[in-house]
Amino acid sequence: MKQHIQQFLIEDIGTNDLSASSIFSESDKGNANFLAKESGTISGLYIIPETYQLLDPSIEVHLLKQDGDKVVSGETIATVNGSIKHILMGERVILNLLQRMSGIATRTNEAVQRLSSSHTRICDTRKTVPGLRLFDKYAVICGGGVNHRFGLYDGVMIKDNHIAFCGSIEKAVAKVREKLGPMVKIEVETESEADVIAAVNSDCDIIMFDNQTPDTIKNWQRHVPKTIVTEASGNITFENLAPYHDTEVDFISLGYLTHSVTSLDISLGGL
Amino acid sequence: MKQHIQQFLIEDIGTNDLSASSIFSESDKGNANFLAKESGTISGLYIIPETYQLLDPSIEVHLLKQDGDKVVSGETIATVNGSIKHILMGERVILNLLQRMSGIATRTNEAVQRLSSSHTRICDTRKTVPGLRLFDKYAVICGGGVNHRFGLYDGVMIKDNHIAFCGSIEKAVAKVREKLGPMVKIEVETESEADVIAAVNSDCDIIMFDNQTPDTIKNWQRHVPKTIVTEASGNITFENLAPYHDTEVDFISLGYLTHSVTSLDISLGGL
Amino acid sequence: MKQHIQQFLIEDIGTNDLSASSIFSESDKGNANFLAKESGTISGLYIIPETYQLLDPSIEVHLLKQDGDKVVSGETIATVNGSIKHILMGERVILNLLQRMSGIATRTNEAVQRLSSSHTRICDTRKTVPGLRLFDKYAVICGGGVNHRFGLYDGVMIKDNHIAFCGSIEKAVAKVREKLGPMVKIEVETESEADVIAAVNSDCDIIMFDNQTPDTIKNWQRHVPKTIVTEASGNITFENLAPYHDTEVDFISLGYLTHSVTSLDISLGGL
Amino acid sequence: MKQHIQQFLIEDIGTNDLSASSIFSESDKGNANFLAKESGTISGLYIIPETYQLLDPSIEVHLLKQDGDKVVSGETIATVNGSIKHILMGERVILNLLQRMSGIATRTNEAVQRLSSSHTRICDTRKTVPGLRLFDKYAVICGGGVNHRFGLYDGVMIKDNHIAFCGSIEKAVAKVREKLGPMVKIEVETESEADVIAAVNSDCDIIMFDNQTPDTIKNWQRHVPKTIVTEASGNITFENLAPYHDTEVDFISLGYLTHSVTSLDISLGGL
Amino acid sequence: MKQHIQQFLIEDIGTNDLSASSIFSESDKGNANFLAKESGTISGLYIIPETYQLLDPSIEVHLLKQDGDKVVSGETIATVNGSIKHILMGERVILNLLQRMSGIATRTNEAVQRLSSSHTRICDTRKTVPGLRLFDKYAVICGGGVNHRFGLYDGVMIKDNHIAFCGSIEKAVAKVREKLGPMVKIEVETESEADVIAAVNSDCDIIMFDNQTPDTIKNWQRHVPKTIVTEASGNITFENLAPYHDTEVDFISLGYLTHSVTSLDISLGGL
Amino acid sequence: MKQHIQQFLIEDIGTNDLSASSIFSESDKGNANFLAKESGTISGLYIIPETYQLLDPSIEVHLLKQDGDKVVSGETIATVNGSIKHILMGERVILNLLQRMSGIATRTNEAVQRLSSSHTRICDTRKTVPGLRLFDKYAVICGGGVNHRFGLYDGVMIKDNHIAFCGSIEKAVAKVREKLGPMVKIEVETESEADVIAAVNSDCDIIMFDNQTPDTIKNWQRHVPKTIVTEASGNITFENLAPYHDTEVDFISLGYLTHSVTSLDISLGGL
Repeated sequence: MKQHIQQFLIEDIGTNDLSASSIFSESDKGNANFLAKESGTISGLYIIPETYQLLDPSIEVHLLKQDGDKVVSGETIATVNGSIKHILMGERVILNLLQRMSGIATRTNEAVQRLSSSHTRICDTRKTVPGLRLFDKYAVICGGGVNHRFGLYDGVMIKDNHIAFCGSIEKAVAKVREKLGPMVKIEVETESEADVIAAVNSDCDIIMFDNQTPDTIKNWQRHVPKTIVTEASGNITFENLAPYHDTEVDFISLGYLTHSVTSLDISLGGL
Repeated sequence: MKQHIQQFLIEDIGTNDLSASSIFSESDKGNANFLAKESGTISGLYIIPETYQLLDPSIEVHLLKQDGDKVVSGETIATVNGSIKHILMGERVILNLLQRMSGIATRTNEAVQRLSSSHTRICDTRKTVPGLRLFDKYAVICGGGVNHRFGLYDGVMIKDNHIAFCGSIEKAVAKVREKLGPMVKIEVETESEADVIAAVNSDCDIIMFDNQTPDTIKNWQRHVPKTIVTEASGNITFENLAPYHDTEVDFISLGYLTHSVTSLDISLGGL
Repeated sequence: MKQHIQQFLIEDIGTNDLSASSIFSESDKGNANFLAKESGTISGLYIIPETYQLLDPSIEVHLLKQDGDKVVSGETIATVNGSIKHILMGERVILNLLQRMSGIATRTNEAVQRLSSSHTRICDTRKTVPGLRLFDKYAVICGGGVNHRFGLYDGVMIKDNHIAFCGSIEKAVAKVREKLGPMVKIEVETESEADVIAAVNSDCDIIMFDNQTPDTIKNWQRHVPKTIVTEASGNITFENLAPYHDTEVDFISLGYLTHSVTSLDISLGGL
Repeated sequence: MKQHIQQFLIEDIGTNDLSASSIFSESDKGNANFLAKESGTISGLYIIPETYQLLDPSIEVHLLKQDGDKVVSGETIATVNGSIKHILMGERVILNLLQRMSGIATRTNEAVQRLSSSHTRICDTRKTVPGLRLFDKYAVICGGGVNHRFGLYDGVMIKDNHIAFCGSIEKAVAKVREKLGPMVKIEVETESEADVIAAVNSDCDIIMFDNQTPDTIKNWQRHVPKTIVTEASGNITFENLAPYHDTEVDFISLGYLTHSVTSLDISLGGL
Repeated sequence: MKQHIQQFLIEDIGTNDLSASSIFSESDKGNANFLAKESGTISGLYIIPETYQLLDPSIEVHLLKQDGDKVVSGETIATVNGSIKHILMGERVILNLLQRMSGIATRTNEAVQRLSSSHTRICDTRKTVPGLRLFDKYAVICGGGVNHRFGLYDGVMIKDNHIAFCGSIEKAVAKVREKLGPMVKIEVETESEADVIAAVNSDCDIIMFDNQTPDTIKNWQRHVPKTIVTEASGNITFENLAPYHDTEVDFISLGYLTHSVTSLDISLGGL
Repeated sequence: MKQHIQQFLIEDIGTNDLSASSIFSESDKGNANFLAKESGTISGLYIIPETYQLLDPSIEVHLLKQDGDKVVSGETIATVNGSIKHILMGERVILNLLQRMSGIATRTNEAVQRLSSSHTRICDTRKTVPGLRLFDKYAVICGGGVNHRFGLYDGVMIKDNHIAFCGSIEKAVAKVREKLGPMVKIEVETESEADVIAAVNSDCDIIMFDNQTPDTIKNWQRHVPKTIVTEASGNITFENLAPYHDTEVDFISLGYLTHSVTSLDISLGGL
């Protein structure tokens, strides 16, 4: 992650922080606080020490919360002490990451609460901001979710165009299984009851019910044995999430968690 | 930009696209379309040819729109023809960028329309997603806005903590001006009428009215000569934007354009 | 891969090819052939055009074989035509990669032939040369094998030290499963019949018989249901491989395929 | 080297070590030992502290041997103490490098012993694994050998195709010498007695006897004055090496040392 | 900057320092001094600790001067203590940078002295050595100058070909102003009195008198109001600089400061 | 080299060329010429097509000279045709490199002419600008010189501090020779007649006369046999170079060629 943060600092600071460098000398010291200005679930606190480690290892950082903790508006989440110039140089990169990650964690946690299931897990998708997938997926875990595939390399998802090309779900799964080693899971997207039955008869590991209502899923799930994992996906939002509780699928994936993020408001104050 | 896209492809594809590689051979060809599933302003179309240039230069891309164009739900914005396997390998990275950038352009354009001013320009902030600043700022321009600073290196912003440290706005501006060459502009954040008067008496180029109502700004602006540029900033949202029309400030900066983006829904279909 | 090859060329050529540059001018052209000097299975042919694409796109390359083909000693596998200087500058990097990859493919194919099973697949391990994992694993596929995990990120392997720490196989598997999303497979290493029974009772996907004889594996396998994949691993060599045929495990992994490679002799001639 | 090891860790660990991260927390500590499971010459010990420095600087490493030392099967070569999770994350990269380098050092040392010459030095070639040349060449030194050229940039080797192009050895050497500064050595490959005589009459620094028997070399060497360095090369193996003792050439280069490496078996135990 | 120095060390050291490594072991320690062998203004002292931090953090560095200080021939500017081998490995990179930067600072300071103005500042241009712009521009500041644009991204310079293309200075400035945000300054090159009047009537921030004598500038400057910054540029050398004192322009830019640098002689001695 | 030029373009252009982008659209085309404004020896012409290849492959470049050619003031050396915006974006990086390299080639060629020797070659040193060594050394060749070592990795230079540490020149050379392979040359710096005699008796390849007058060198050279190469170095300038003609040393190295470069004036005109 350190290499990513280094790159983000270069993007923001470029040749120099003209403002801070003109006003503060290296020896001007001060204290500052990171404050939550909204209530939510925090994620990305480690960004604060990692950023200042890169900018100025003599800055002291004290974290008052842990990733995954709830914060309320007005709470201090971290304090920093050291060169004012360097504290200010890192401010924007830290806040941009911390606010986004905490926004994701907060929305994930709200979904987990809303679903209120001891069995079904909330998970993410690949609809993350390019370059930040590891940050986005880590934030989902802080909010109480789990991670779906990290990329095209760690799992097979057989979709409608794959199936159409091969002729049937069974043929598509068989063609893929033939070429893969022991560690790869195969998930099949299903859009009809016939698809579900075909998937059950194939050698797949996971069946996804794509874009279906809770009632339909409950109906189709009769065909699926315990040894196959199930997932609901597609147009599930915070508003329509609750009734999926009764489907008892293993996983519900929510694209909105990462593709349309509302930041959690956090600021740096006290300097 | 090409280097960024290369990096994003590595993030998503990693060692291999297990699904597409197991099902399609290099010689399986097809057509596909990028479709708007919502109405809005498009931005980032060049991502499509640049991505496929990196993955497979033999894929043909036809863009049916230009960046900055309006699209309506259902419209085709680009067609691609070539290796199905490679078209699919680029899908997610392209959509993740294109949806975000079009989301930003759409929201920017809505703000420009809402403001409906021939004088005042909408501009962005540094509250962008780390690693995507150039993409985010380009999208603002596609929506009809202009760009504020790209980073800490291309302009000075004198804030409350700088002023407190120096003792006064005049002293802060003088201290900065002493150290800088001819090309750097100095902007001063003002939070009171006294601040505005002090800023006018300093050697600054831009005065920002931080977190003030339109009426207050109109009142304070009496003190500002034509040779100083003015900007309204801080907690201005789509909802409260319209009345700023009458302030006749030169620029209004909107943090929400880039820090809390709702993607424009675009999909790849037709394969 | 192109970036890897670029880096390898820099390693070998450095500031300049002093020999070729002093003797040949850019305009001296010639033909050359890549010749197999041993019989085996070829892998890595695409390295030839990719390398010359980087060094000099005007060099013409004709591949007379495909990856995975058998070659006999003396056969020409590719011809190149163009600037002699640039043909020679790429020679060593191409041969070092092609000889290693063809060595791996040859050894893999010999193992597949020796095992002679329509059910059991030969697979590799993470015992690859650092920096070349993608090349090594691709070569295993050319030889008729399949790939085990690519790294620590795409599959869980529960080993003795994990089990000891958690108290039992069941507890270790449960602890891992709790934290992971739908796409991750869990493999358990077993070293006793009790281990196998415990693994069957856990929520694992794959059972590995670590360092066991074919007879032991046959015996223990009675406990394993069809829905769990099986793998034999540990100290299996070309010499002792054949009797594993009757175990009917799903996969046999062979570390020697990549950790101790004997190159296939290939040379560049005819200039 | 640190940058290489960083890259190798990314190759192996990728997004996360799913196994270790799910089971161990940061605060679970333990001891482990690197053990030789075969006798041989060790090389690459510094890889252990450098890898853990990158992963977790709080891990303590104690090296019980030095590079170049002999080890016997069962001997402990290093101990580590610290976070179990991080010790395991570095295990495979360390072993893959250490086993290969110790394999090269062992084979080099066996060649030095077999040759048993106080005058003739064993050296390597450019037949190294791409990306690991510095590691491979360092291992040769640990085994008691010396290094031939590192690449095409630090020495000239005039081969048959250069000679054919220029018309004669004398012309080839003269053409090269004309273009080079004081620090570059020129070596000429000879395949006949006439070649040797021509090389002696040219302004070369080194004469290589390519693919010749010890007797032939002894015969041809009569023509070579003391001021020209001599080297035997080409198809010299551990089996046919001993009789080259009497040739009294200055260097014998052995391609097999690095192009077909058998790892020395080393393991991480005791956790 | 650390990444630049790392890259420069790789350029110079490459695979190894053959000389120092063959003669000194890691444990051979010594002291050395960096000595000025000419009088001038020093710049780049921080290069010494940063380089040794990268090569060997155990080397102790004591700086006896600060950047911007005057030194006289024979003065010691820094002392180092530690591994002789590592002190020597960094010597050439440090001296190559330090001598160039001190050369630039010295020449800049001579220009500031010669001009002897309390109002007019000396500034640099983009005529820097590719790859070293930050180093070159920092050295100008050490000599008492200020920095003009860092690149094409942080300021607009409207030149003759832009003006010809747009039809007039006013049209060119208007076209640019339309597209830019609040932080960008626009400078116009003028080559005639009419140009100056046109520039004054445009919305530009800075007027540059290109290649004009002091007398001409004084004459033209009558047209320029106080709110527009002025700059003299073009063929101003140390020899013809003094009379520009009376022009009272705000800035004089000197290309020779960075495009034709005479190093200040500094050496490493005392080992 | 392409990677270096890419990096230099990023340094200069950064986020965007604000001037050219605001004024010219992609479709505005034009012609321009690179003109010599001083007489000298040209070096680095290939920079022009390589830069435009990176910026815009549709720009046509015609080179009217070759590297190493003499140019007179006013001569056109290359013409370009294409997008005005992209021609201007590459201008500064091209000129900064081309002017420096041509400055080095010009000064080298003047030294070659001044020395006027059919035997003695002019060569360079490691006193190059960090990051540009390959460019600087190539320019020396264009001017008719040859290259000394490229770095610490391709040759051994035994200096006074090495000799003092080892006790004598013979011991220092022997210690180094023991550790090195066949391709490395050893040069010894000598500062007295006794040093020269000691060097002759050692196993060195090159003797350097450090900081000596032509007469002293002629005197000392009596001791040196033909098989040892000789070099004069240290404080040799254009002014005192001529008398070294009679020393008949093999090489004279000139630090000033690269450490204090006066650019050759070249401009881009005609747009």
